[in-house]
Amino acid sequence: MTKAYAAQTASSPLGPFEITRRTPGPEDVEIAILYCGVCHSDLHTARNEWRNTLYPSVPGHEIVGRVVAVGERVHRFAVGDLAGVGCMVDSCGHCASCAEGEEQYCENGFTGTYNGPVAGGENTYGGYSARVVVKESFVLRIRHDEKDLAAVAPLLCAGITTYSPLRHWRAGPGKKVGVVGLGGLGHMGVKIAHALGAHVTLFTTSPGKVADGRRLGADAVCLSSDPAQMAARAGSLDFILNTVAAAHRLDDYLGLLKRDGTMALVGAPEHPHPSPAAFSLIFKRRSLAGSLIGGIRETQEMLDFCAAHGIISDIETIRMDYINTAYERMLKNDVKYRFVIDMATI
Amino acid sequence: MTKAYAAQTASSPLGPFEITRRTPGPEDVEIAILYCGVCHSDLHTARNEWRNTLYPSVPGHEIVGRVVAVGERVHRFAVGDLAGVGCMVDSCGHCASCAEGEEQYCENGFTGTYNGPVAGGENTYGGYSARVVVKESFVLRIRHDEKDLAAVAPLLCAGITTYSPLRHWRAGPGKKVGVVGLGGLGHMGVKIAHALGAHVTLFTTSPGKVADGRRLGADAVCLSSDPAQMAARAGSLDFILNTVAAAHRLDDYLGLLKRDGTMALVGAPEHPHPSPAAFSLIFKRRSLAGSLIGGIRETQEMLDFCAAHGIISDIETIRMDYINTAYERMLKNDVKYRFVIDMATI
Repeated sequence: MTKAYAAQTASSPLGPFEITRRTPGPEDVEIAILYCGVCHSDLHTARNEWRNTLYPSVPGHEIVGRVVAVGERVHRFAVGDLAGVGCMVDSCGHCASCAEGEEQYCENGFTGTYNGPVAGGENTYGGYSARVVVKESFVLRIRHDEKDLAAVAPLLCAGITTYSPLRHWRAGPGKKVGVVGLGGLGHMGVKIAHALGAHVTLFTTSPGKVADGRRLGADAVCLSSDPAQMAARAGSLDFILNTVAAAHRLDDYLGLLKRDGTMALVGAPEHPHPSPAAFSLIFKRRSLAGSLIGGIRETQEMLDFCAAHGIISDIETIRMDYINTAYERMLKNDVKYRFVIDMATI
Repeated sequence: MTKAYAAQTASSPLGPFEITRRTPGPEDVEIAILYCGVCHSDLHTARNEWRNTLYPSVPGHEIVGRVVAVGERVHRFAVGDLAGVGCMVDSCGHCASCAEGEEQYCENGFTGTYNGPVAGGENTYGGYSARVVVKESFVLRIRHDEKDLAAVAPLLCAGITTYSPLRHWRAGPGKKVGVVGLGGLGHMGVKIAHALGAHVTLFTTSPGKVADGRRLGADAVCLSSDPAQMAARAGSLDFILNTVAAAHRLDDYLGLLKRDGTMALVGAPEHPHPSPAAFSLIFKRRSLAGSLIGGIRETQEMLDFCAAHGIISDIETIRMDYINTAYERMLKNDVKYRFVIDMATI
């Protein structure tokens, strides 16, 4: 049996639970989990806010740990290695997206690290647990210093969710990039866009986050609630990474894009954003796009990039039994900028 | 004095009016207008539906005619040549967009063929007139057979408005392209996408347009009002050209795009489209974009492409004094697919 923390229903707090992990098969890696980041998706799922939760629900998809067993056909990992697991533990492996290493867009649907039905209809259990068994091809190598391990965990979701669109839309030297929102995703977006060499403008509604934005790597911080500051930036950005999941006026940001610029959404609001005006798109051939995490190959690339650039997440480490309080604080944006569970406390 | 047809106020019908064209300067071309297409923008402007009309208003930006005078520095046109004028007659000429031949996105605002304030605050008058004087660099060469001249006129707006996004998003062999709506723009989109070598699916709400869609070049026609026909095409298209200016659910079409597919809007509804769901964009990294006419270089390329492929518009030729009736019929979609005014009747 493996210790875990689970929600038994949409309305019950998370609490101790015992799960059974499969015996590692020939291609499996068994990992003793050291740290697990707390993503807003964990809360959405625990509380069935997306109306698709399988119970009991064990959230957690920002996992780092140490390999404790490997199957006979596993070659890239050995017992004692550090390892990471992100949002996916499997995909069909043969569709066009999988063939191109974009498993997150698997045409047949990837298997989520939690809440993902596996063969036979079972529910997958995530990283709020002592151990996990994952197919080698979905296990990531961790090259950061061991002392930073807790702060590496959020890279597995928040890191790749921002890195992938920044790379896809070519953020880099000579490009002006906007990052909207300074939370778990936004603070990673600012760090990564800066490290990629782009000129970064952070957009926030909080005057209290201006200094933090600059510390994290923003070249400029714009108070999005100030029309004059917004107007001064009209038509100036090549790309905007919009991390805000609450409904807001997209036109305010689309107007900041240059001709042929793109704004990519990485959050989905519970209620739709007010409809963008067609003219916002037509007059400068702008695009409004979306992006979902990233493929396994790109996730490894992101981890290696972050290790090389000394990028980790800004975190607050918590005990497992603090998770319900952490959820409440997360709802109030009362965290800078990611909770990470120390799994020794489970 | 030059004979024209003008609206004097937002509520008055168009009627005869006399205007003064400037004496051709050294870089100007004077054109005796033979035909002028009737675009929905003409009606929007005549009736001040975009709240920016300068009166008197002489609409018309799908102009073909014959050169009757040229300035001393004009080299590409001679008296007797056929010539065309589209939606623009000038732009700043020095911004980044102008430098790249994308005058339609001029950072300082292009001068519209009509309703465009020129130096001194004067209003520009469009093609519902006997003659027009235009700077050579905004005059297009016509290589079609003279017998087709009336049906060439709509290429100057409807043609380039569909050609430009089809080229920008690389419609061609091996690509599956959707065209939404079969009107003035849509029927050109189907013809051009087909000629570019793409597999074309027309989406229409009208069972009566299925046969016409196929005749115009669609490989398939989908009744968008039939959920089963729509569902069968989920995730199958590389690009969608959406020509419908009435508000409609964009999600229905975004769901038809493959991973990394784009839907480009070329019409702007009076009331916004229902807001697209962020998930429609996120799950396959799709884009919702917009596109505005095309640059002068690309308009010439489009005219030459259409001449080489025998592409003209399907038109109904009308007398100048029929214009008010034509507007009413246009509002009921009672035209296949573009009215063109025979300017000999002015």
